[in-house]
Amino acid sequence: MNLPLGYRYASTYAGIRAVERDDLALIVSGMPATAAAVFTQNRVPASPVKLCRRHLAISRGQAGAILVNAGNANCATRTGDAVALATCKAAAKILRLPVAQVLPSSTGVIGVELDPKLITRALPGLAERLSEDGFGAVARAIMTTDTQPKEAFGEVRLRRGTVRIAGMTKGSGMIQPRMATTLGYVMTDANLPLAQVKRMVRRGAERSYNRVSVDGDTSTNDTLVLLANGASGVRPDPQEFAAVEEAVGGVMETLARMIARDGEGAKKLITIHVAGAPSDDAATRIARTIANSPLVKTAVAGSDPNWGRIICAAGNAGVPFDPGKIDIDMQGVPVCRAGLAAEFSEDGLKQKLDGPECEIRLTIRGRGKGRARFWTCDFTYDYIRINASYRT
Amino acid sequence: MNLPLGYRYASTYAGIRAVERDDLALIVSGMPATAAAVFTQNRVPASPVKLCRRHLAISRGQAGAILVNAGNANCATRTGDAVALATCKAAAKILRLPVAQVLPSSTGVIGVELDPKLITRALPGLAERLSEDGFGAVARAIMTTDTQPKEAFGEVRLRRGTVRIAGMTKGSGMIQPRMATTLGYVMTDANLPLAQVKRMVRRGAERSYNRVSVDGDTSTNDTLVLLANGASGVRPDPQEFAAVEEAVGGVMETLARMIARDGEGAKKLITIHVAGAPSDDAATRIARTIANSPLVKTAVAGSDPNWGRIICAAGNAGVPFDPGKIDIDMQGVPVCRAGLAAEFSEDGLKQKLDGPECEIRLTIRGRGKGRARFWTCDFTYDYIRINASYRT
Repeated sequence: MNLPLGYRYASTYAGIRAVERDDLALIVSGMPATAAAVFTQNRVPASPVKLCRRHLAISRGQAGAILVNAGNANCATRTGDAVALATCKAAAKILRLPVAQVLPSSTGVIGVELDPKLITRALPGLAERLSEDGFGAVARAIMTTDTQPKEAFGEVRLRRGTVRIAGMTKGSGMIQPRMATTLGYVMTDANLPLAQVKRMVRRGAERSYNRVSVDGDTSTNDTLVLLANGASGVRPDPQEFAAVEEAVGGVMETLARMIARDGEGAKKLITIHVAGAPSDDAATRIARTIANSPLVKTAVAGSDPNWGRIICAAGNAGVPFDPGKIDIDMQGVPVCRAGLAAEFSEDGLKQKLDGPECEIRLTIRGRGKGRARFWTCDFTYDYIRINASYRT
Repeated sequence: MNLPLGYRYASTYAGIRAVERDDLALIVSGMPATAAAVFTQNRVPASPVKLCRRHLAISRGQAGAILVNAGNANCATRTGDAVALATCKAAAKILRLPVAQVLPSSTGVIGVELDPKLITRALPGLAERLSEDGFGAVARAIMTTDTQPKEAFGEVRLRRGTVRIAGMTKGSGMIQPRMATTLGYVMTDANLPLAQVKRMVRRGAERSYNRVSVDGDTSTNDTLVLLANGASGVRPDPQEFAAVEEAVGGVMETLARMIARDGEGAKKLITIHVAGAPSDDAATRIARTIANSPLVKTAVAGSDPNWGRIICAAGNAGVPFDPGKIDIDMQGVPVCRAGLAAEFSEDGLKQKLDGPECEIRLTIRGRGKGRARFWTCDFTYDYIRINASYRT
């Protein structure tokens, strides 16, 4: 798969994390890209989230660079706003961009002051290292407790030529994005009007990042940016927007699924399908409640086909339904029919649950048309190990 | 502390649980008690919950007995409604009560048929064993993953004499009661009008059971019953109702706190105080969101004063506030002031967090009058161990 044209990437170790692993990165578009983003709905947004939102407003959706660091969320700190602005200014100067065309992001620990000099000192070297091949290195630099980098790619053939899409993301814990995710950057070389870029990031997030949860905690730093720099020279016809949107959404969905699969301590990706609900929103609420039930997630960790916990979780979603109309399947095996235990081989299903993926399908019988897909992961000892000692 | 007059208790092993430990119990009032209860808000209520609600309606709040089993929730089963009714009928016959004066409860695994013969066969022996001293044995019989029985007592001196209160409860996982708890039975020998009993159970639950969460899962079987049999011969004056209500609520609060302390795998009781919110309801929402954050709960397990996770969780409660107005204390130590890190000794606080209790206090500066207290527990390896293999 080819990367989108016109983007360069670089990463370096700036000394923000304790361990020596790249923690500062730049994504730069040769020509200003049309840009839109969605952000965390947490009431305590981090400084870079606030500034990123402001820069997109000032620049009217034009961006030349993304400046991102791991190891410090730059949230709930005395100097946070000043640090975000000073580091963007430094990057803008080196890259010869208006400040508002630099979009800042941070991820890491909350409530610890971030020394801006670590970033400003590293920036000149970082800018020199920018290259079209740096994509994978940046995807690694933004990792925190992630066990692997998360990249996804797409390509769409349009009447006037081919446009390419590449996305990267990070995230493993504090994951229940709402209207956005932890950090995600999706680049395309399509030439798209701002209204389309905004629409694609909003609708793409809705079907991808807003459908995953690791632990039900929405981070303070969630940011998902879509850049469209037009470097392919291809301007899609209006009737082709849907195809581009589908490809962009597909890349986001792959990234979101990677986050769930790499949830802290996770051994299994759980995909939850809900059908037959009164509305898509109601289906999503049921799916989200199942995905956030520690009892469901630990049962899956133990390969226990304990569907009673699934129907119990569904009953807590605040969506009215008749328990006698509920069917549940796990790994394609009927475990509950009309709210009651179905006949199934417990040993056989336990074996099927030992694999790396678990599928839970809950259907409400009747005429409801509401559907939802949702991704999460199992809940293991390692989640506790990782989080009982994150800072220390 | 003396038990309320006029109640007898018995428990036995009826073969419902796999391990031989008492799993069936009766609580009987010599004279019919005025009774009220609150129940789970889960959309999949268990059969005994539905029948208990109906019996209280039919009897207009008169109850002579509570019949309770552990080891099987009698929920989402083909025969559940019939089993609940048949076992109540059998108990009513032996105890010479109208059927509607027998209140059923069950706790245990969901979705497994409960054989009514196990109960009906055990009932005659159980009834013979009824005694005023059986209170503690019944408190043990209703335990599931609880590590200890949960009992609380109260006494109020009124103008016409003393009334006594005794309560028992169970619960350790699938705990986030809403308007009720898992199973809780509170008996008093006061002579109270039904309207007062209803008011006391509703308001008592609000300040106790509705303020604890172990894992954010609301069970299908939650039931909290208050019985007032008047055996003390003391009819409180209307102006004394508040004193009785306070004592009843105090017993419920003690029981609820015991549930949080004994949460599955828990090593620490966490008490969360929120003050300065726009309303008590908003304060409760913030406290509940903190209590349900796996990241906060694992940090406490690791004695990590990671207040960033607390402010992040607060930001997800859906209550608007200015992050710059947030103060947080842990174990009485200021860790966050005006949304920013306070100066504190990390090592000193870590030591204080090693104890069996953790206090988190979040205050929103300003004129808000909303307050809430909420109890939860830390999140340890043992929660995973217990729940990855509950059925097997």
